Amino acid sequence: MIRANDPHLHSWIEIAPESDFPIQNLPFGIFSTPDRDPRVGVAIGEYILDLCVLGRHNFFELIDFDPNVFHRPVLNDFIAMGKPVWRAVRNRVSELLRNNNEEISGDSELIRECLVLQSEATMHMPVKVPNYTDFYSSLEHATNVGTMFRDPETALLPNWKHLPVGYHGRASSIVVSGTPIHRPKGQTKAADQDTPTFGPSQQLDFELEVAFITGKETPLGQSITPYEAEEYIFGLVLFNDWSARDIQTWEYVPLGPFLAKSFASSVSPWVVTLDALEPFRVKGPEQIPKPLPNLEALGNRNYDIHLEVLLQPQHKAASTISHTNFKHMYWSMAQQLAHQSSNGCNIMVGDLYASGTVSGARQEAYGSMLELTWRGTQPLQLPDGSERQFIQDYDTVIMRGHCELNGIRVGFGEVRGQVLPAIQH
Amino acid sequence: MIRANDPHLHSWIEIAPESDFPIQNLPFGIFSTPDRDPRVGVAIGEYILDLCVLGRHNFFELIDFDPNVFHRPVLNDFIAMGKPVWRAVRNRVSELLRNNNEEISGDSELIRECLVLQSEATMHMPVKVPNYTDFYSSLEHATNVGTMFRDPETALLPNWKHLPVGYHGRASSIVVSGTPIHRPKGQTKAADQDTPTFGPSQQLDFELEVAFITGKETPLGQSITPYEAEEYIFGLVLFNDWSARDIQTWEYVPLGPFLAKSFASSVSPWVVTLDALEPFRVKGPEQIPKPLPNLEALGNRNYDIHLEVLLQPQHKAASTISHTNFKHMYWSMAQQLAHQSSNGCNIMVGDLYASGTVSGARQEAYGSMLELTWRGTQPLQLPDGSERQFIQDYDTVIMRGHCELNGIRVGFGEVRGQVLPAIQH
Repeated sequence: MIRANDPHLHSWIEIAPESDFPIQNLPFGIFSTPDRDPRVGVAIGEYILDLCVLGRHNFFELIDFDPNVFHRPVLNDFIAMGKPVWRAVRNRVSELLRNNNEEISGDSELIRECLVLQSEATMHMPVKVPNYTDFYSSLEHATNVGTMFRDPETALLPNWKHLPVGYHGRASSIVVSGTPIHRPKGQTKAADQDTPTFGPSQQLDFELEVAFITGKETPLGQSITPYEAEEYIFGLVLFNDWSARDIQTWEYVPLGPFLAKSFASSVSPWVVTLDALEPFRVKGPEQIPKPLPNLEALGNRNYDIHLEVLLQPQHKAASTISHTNFKHMYWSMAQQLAHQSSNGCNIMVGDLYASGTVSGARQEAYGSMLELTWRGTQPLQLPDGSERQFIQDYDTVIMRGHCELNGIRVGFGEVRGQVLPAIQH
Repeated sequence: MIRANDPHLHSWIEIAPESDFPIQNLPFGIFSTPDRDPRVGVAIGEYILDLCVLGRHNFFELIDFDPNVFHRPVLNDFIAMGKPVWRAVRNRVSELLRNNNEEISGDSELIRECLVLQSEATMHMPVKVPNYTDFYSSLEHATNVGTMFRDPETALLPNWKHLPVGYHGRASSIVVSGTPIHRPKGQTKAADQDTPTFGPSQQLDFELEVAFITGKETPLGQSITPYEAEEYIFGLVLFNDWSARDIQTWEYVPLGPFLAKSFASSVSPWVVTLDALEPFRVKGPEQIPKPLPNLEALGNRNYDIHLEVLLQPQHKAASTISHTNFKHMYWSMAQQLAHQSSNGCNIMVGDLYASGTVSGARQEAYGSMLELTWRGTQPLQLPDGSERQFIQDYDTVIMRGHCELNGIRVGFGEVRGQVLPAIQH
């Protein structure tokens, strides 16, 4: 059998070399058009392959599942069918799109029916998220934030290298790329004031993250190991964990971030499967001290994903303000999920687990304005001559990510969000 | 019109004076029997009134809704129909159960069809919980915990009296009363050790809480005031926020409780509506400093609910180890929900918002073992001669709650859970 990741594969659909969506990727998402209600599609080049249509034409009849799951407004039901089904569907889609396959390419009417231009489609939240956790797994980010919020001596707290620190976030306010975000209001207290005030946040920030979506349940009370964890991961998305630093500073003790985060988080619409990312596995940073046995994860558990953040002032061009790589994360996704389940907490289909801000070692690789401007003390200079300490109204934040190896680029597309002024209630 | 809360109402069903479920209560829940799949019922005395059956017999035909929403395994669809519908259904049920009404009581076959003994039914999770928040709104509890985890000088952090501190919890592991809980495993570090270890928690605790369930959405970006907030609350349940203190101590900095809580929380099965609690409104404690205008909530915003915790060792009698009252909470539910939405975070139907541990001023009114035994230093003596620092395997924790005024008792029933040994994976 030809593997769906084979770098020698080509599609009968012409795909630009800089596209994030070659035949080796085939991410899943939910799209609609004026004529098609929300349904499951696969990105290929500039197109979306409508899996609903393919199901209706019996292109999946050799796979043991009901292709009506493609006619749903979220991926959850499809994901819940299990890895053998996702994998078989992706392999079958790969086969149908290969340049030597004529099942679709030989039928011009069918091509018109099953291919939709991405530019003519609306993308939706890929999953309904029953539970959302945000980790804090970049050593550089945790050190930077700890230095600013506390002091350099106690920047990294004693537990940090023993377990992947995380907290539960708000699932209701996770939105798909393109959804505008209203600047949050909140209670803040200036260092030189005795009492707090309430109003629009003055320190609105983004956090560059990668999140994984689970595709398999665990029963309450049971745990999984890091070695088992990858079997529970369906795929990955880019994640902007919008943060209000002034609200966070005042509210976060002793129970952690709450309203500083829960006003919105944004995800990219295409879920890149772990299968598609397989060629881009790399070893993570060495972990000293060695994790306890239940968190031990030898082998290549990190993924080499180039990440960048662009900032676009209104009516101006976007410019890159950060670029880093997901491979630097101290704690791997496998360790994060094993940790989440280690107390018996049950994993559900569609859960979203975000990495925490991905920051590299150098300043240009920091994944938040907090770090890039060192809490506003070193404003960013933008090409239009303006400067930023934090995010201003009408700014758009864009995050992109892709892997590249042997001439093959497997990408995530982007997650973008424009900030609108706070709503005056 | 006769009000459903009228203390002079009596039902044609005989109800013991000590029952939590007189005709003035009429809480909603989800039940099943060997012959009836999960569906909506109302508790009345020792019985459950099957609303599915009443809907089929057109007893709700004057109310503008589809009574098929009673044939669902959770209350969410019913709740989503809005307060006018919940209220009209409760009023109609009250009418049908009154001792002067013969629509049901005059038809012995119908009585057999629509009444089920609670002892013969299985109760289920009343709602599917899309989002769960845990507040920290008892002044006494926050002071006690702060004293133990930090020190008496900084027990109450500077933000505590300015906003209802809270954090997001894990929704997946919320279970209904009666579901056994496995002791969680986790990473802990003894004060006299340099490195952490992994194993079953040695400091398993309960937290006595009351939680409210929302019945109305807000759009993302918008906020509600405390005065509007009560319109969004469907009803209340008892809530046991199981906690592993040794895991919590090690993990909770800087992002708050995570695995110390996410292994399980238990709720009572009957949702007591805010309408049924109306006669038990009282003024809350005076708030000094005065909250900022967006959290201001004059009037009677607290509820006078007697609460107690019983501990039952295996094969022994249960004994009361704590009794307190919900009316002492510093921050009201209305303020909690207004705070949650103040940054634009959207509220969803079925969300669960827990109060935080309800502790009174005296030791016997403390709502957790942590406080009752002062972190294990003053073990509880039980009637069977044994003592407890924390919860042992096979112990059952039972929480009860009720209001009482003018001879009318409106109660919650109970939330109970037995602790089983940790699962060895």
